[in-house]
Amino acid sequence: EITALFEDVHFADIAEVLDELDFDEAIYIIKLLDSEKTSEILTELEDDIREKILDNLSAKEIADEIGEMDSDDAADIIGELSIERQRRVINELEDDELAADIKELLSYDDNTAGALMAKELVKVYETWTVAGCMRRIRGQAKEVTRVHSIYVVDKDDKLVGRLSLKDLIIAKSDQKIADISKDSVDSVNVNEDDEEIAKIMAKYDLEAIPVVDDNNVLVGRITIDDIVDVIRDEADKDYQMAAGFSQDVEANDTIWELTKARLPWLILALFGGFVSVSVLGSFDEAMLKYPELFFFTPLIAAMAGNVGVQSSAIIVQGLANDSLRGSLFRRLLKEILQGLLNGFVLAALLMSAGMLFLGFPLDLGITVAASLVSVIVIASIIGTFIPIILAKRGVDPALATGPFITTSNDILGILIYFSIAKLVLGF
Amino acid sequence: EITALFEDVHFADIAEVLDELDFDEAIYIIKLLDSEKTSEILTELEDDIREKILDNLSAKEIADEIGEMDSDDAADIIGELSIERQRRVINELEDDELAADIKELLSYDDNTAGALMAKELVKVYETWTVAGCMRRIRGQAKEVTRVHSIYVVDKDDKLVGRLSLKDLIIAKSDQKIADISKDSVDSVNVNEDDEEIAKIMAKYDLEAIPVVDDNNVLVGRITIDDIVDVIRDEADKDYQMAAGFSQDVEANDTIWELTKARLPWLILALFGGFVSVSVLGSFDEAMLKYPELFFFTPLIAAMAGNVGVQSSAIIVQGLANDSLRGSLFRRLLKEILQGLLNGFVLAALLMSAGMLFLGFPLDLGITVAASLVSVIVIASIIGTFIPIILAKRGVDPALATGPFITTSNDILGILIYFSIAKLVLGF
Ligand SMILES: [Mg+2]
Ligand SMILES: [Mg+2]
Ligand SMILES: [Mg+2]
Ligand SMILES: [Mg+2]
Ligand SMILES: [Mg+2]
Ligand SMILES: [Mg+2]
Ligand SMILES: [Mg+2]
Ligand SMILES: [Mg+2]
Ligand SMILES: [Mg+2]
Ligand SMILES: [Mg+2]
Ligand SMILES: [Mg+2]
Ligand SMILES: [Mg+2]
Ligand SMILES: [Mg+2]
Repeated sequence: EITALFEDVHFADIAEVLDELDFDEAIYIIKLLDSEKTSEILTELEDDIREKILDNLSAKEIADEIGEMDSDDAADIIGELSIERQRRVINELEDDELAADIKELLSYDDNTAGALMAKELVKVYETWTVAGCMRRIRGQAKEVTRVHSIYVVDKDDKLVGRLSLKDLIIAKSDQKIADISKDSVDSVNVNEDDEEIAKIMAKYDLEAIPVVDDNNVLVGRITIDDIVDVIRDEADKDYQMAAGFSQDVEANDTIWELTKARLPWLILALFGGFVSVSVLGSFDEAMLKYPELFFFTPLIAAMAGNVGVQSSAIIVQGLANDSLRGSLFRRLLKEILQGLLNGFVLAALLMSAGMLFLGFPLDLGITVAASLVSVIVIASIIGTFIPIILAKRGVDPALATGPFITTSNDILGILIYFSIAKLVLGF
Repeated sequence: EITALFEDVHFADIAEVLDELDFDEAIYIIKLLDSEKTSEILTELEDDIREKILDNLSAKEIADEIGEMDSDDAADIIGELSIERQRRVINELEDDELAADIKELLSYDDNTAGALMAKELVKVYETWTVAGCMRRIRGQAKEVTRVHSIYVVDKDDKLVGRLSLKDLIIAKSDQKIADISKDSVDSVNVNEDDEEIAKIMAKYDLEAIPVVDDNNVLVGRITIDDIVDVIRDEADKDYQMAAGFSQDVEANDTIWELTKARLPWLILALFGGFVSVSVLGSFDEAMLKYPELFFFTPLIAAMAGNVGVQSSAIIVQGLANDSLRGSLFRRLLKEILQGLLNGFVLAALLMSAGMLFLGFPLDLGITVAASLVSVIVIASIIGTFIPIILAKRGVDPALATGPFITTSNDILGILIYFSIAKLVLGF
């Protein structure tokens, strides 16, 4: 009955239902349904739910599911198991070729073309004719869910061109493949970084890209659906990093997981806060003569934080899209000019509002306004350069936005503010 | 010579070169090269550079370029012109069908399926045979850059199924289309929101999706390359919103554009800062007895801001991915528990560090610690509910993260802190 119920439902929708279900029911349904369907469901489940389900399946049962998957999904799921279970599941696989493919795919580093690609693709030799090629495709195509391009290789399996199904349909059956294929074919090296591949595929509007080894031998193929996931995951990760999470979380994770992801940056911010307490404490002699100065510290710190986040976000994004142009010096100049422009507008607002409505004296107004301009300029410079420096050192620049920038700018902002106050007011 | 130089270069690369070039040189190259190539380059150029180039082309020249484009790109580019120029360019088009298609595409609202789709697709009637269908595809396919799916319609042009080129190649030539096509075909309504379409295509791993009107008549097709751009643009936009930009900018924009995008939120933050100045001012009697209290305001404000941004970011992401589960009440409970957990850890750290190293008295320690816990819990609740409320009112919840949350949490945090201090210390 349940089998009939689920028959016409897309596996991605079933996966969503299972994510909601009681855990025992989910296992019951996975065991009940045909592995042709459940294998696809498994690939779509959320990681933590899949992990629990796999814990409850035998090596043989997992192998049956894996046997129905594309090699990339199979390798991803096996990769989530312990080394010992990986070995046992691979031993249970009936298809030796798939077993070999999975072992190969597991050998590549995370976030590389090798870890993303599937072994399934349609490959033809340049010396074949269109008719021979059609015959071969009728054979190969059954294993390849979507054909996209047909890759043309020479006798050493080196990639030499590509062909679309459309080209093949339009061609005459006695033509040689070499004559109708396109010689220029985009490909990526098996060690290429996944975000770079996403940029290439987005730029050239590709739906699939062949993967080659250092000798240009065709070893696999990456399809756009997996790149769409890379792009979305990467965006989610950058967004979370900017918001101060130290690891990948989502709203439905447990309180414990969420707290673990949130605490590290909060602790850093707390220690940053201590530093600002000490800085303020060291200016305590000002409290008798100019108590109002202390009322402005949150304002100055907030402005420094906001400006710093803006500056770093635009650089992080420019770095991510490879769209930063011009020299470091020109970028510095541009930030300083923007900082001055923003700073003067805000300082003018502050002076007029402060003196008209809050009625504070001219020397205090000048002190706060001058501090605001300086703090904004310096916060912009820091926000600009920290991500650039991180990227140069191979650290993800997205780390720079969020708590890191706001905390350091808070401290620096307060220090600058009171130093200027001391200079102007001379307490 | 330049023509030969650019012959084998991909148009997306030429567009990148032109983005860098002197403006006159760019126009020279666009006019020099064949419009078959330049039309593709034009679609890839950055908006502001394309705008300048189009200003320097006649309506006839633009029509020549447009004539070579897919209907979706053609409509996008014509849409950037003034209404008067739009009319003139469309009149200059030689292809009446393309002109009609462009007029139709321009009629749909921004960010809908209609604005994203192209009119080019391969369509066959269910009553045809495989052989007839192959003949038709050989004809239609020349205009359709990539076939993806073949859409099957009934005699009223209503979408009834789909077929892959692979299915067609594998089928026998006298089979009826109705017998080999898949009946269940994902499609989207022409008024569907583009971000929803992105979610659907990502979920079902689609490379193209047919677009239908309210009567299920097939009107167009959306391809994954354009959805990849939607996903990337949307991620960039959310990231910028969280960082406090009021409009879409990038690192290479002019200082003036960047300042315009940054100032609005900074002005809001400045006024938020004024409020915090007043709040602090209203507690000035504390200054004589407990001056140290004022040293902690930036720490409290920073913690409130960081916690609020964390909470709102996770909700914004959950809303964007449709992954928020459970009732509002459970979510509230979860936030409070997380807030308490984070709060107690941080308060314990603060107390021990403060009393051991900074040597401040117990009552002050208790005040700051109790405030920290309260501020963290309340900041989490606010960070959670503001995006949920915005989303319910149809406002983009991404607006909630960044300056808005940090500013309101700064004020609230300081207010709570001094109220608790007054309660505990009784100044
Ligand atoms: Mg099963
Ligand atoms: Mg993998
Ligand atoms: Mg693209
Ligand atoms: Mg494109
Ligand atoms: Mg895949
Ligand atoms: Mg990144
Ligand atoms: Mg031209
Ligand atoms: Mg459009
Ligand atoms: Mg997907
Ligand atoms: Mg998938
Ligand atoms: Mg398109
Ligand atoms: Mg959005
Ligand atoms: Mg702050």
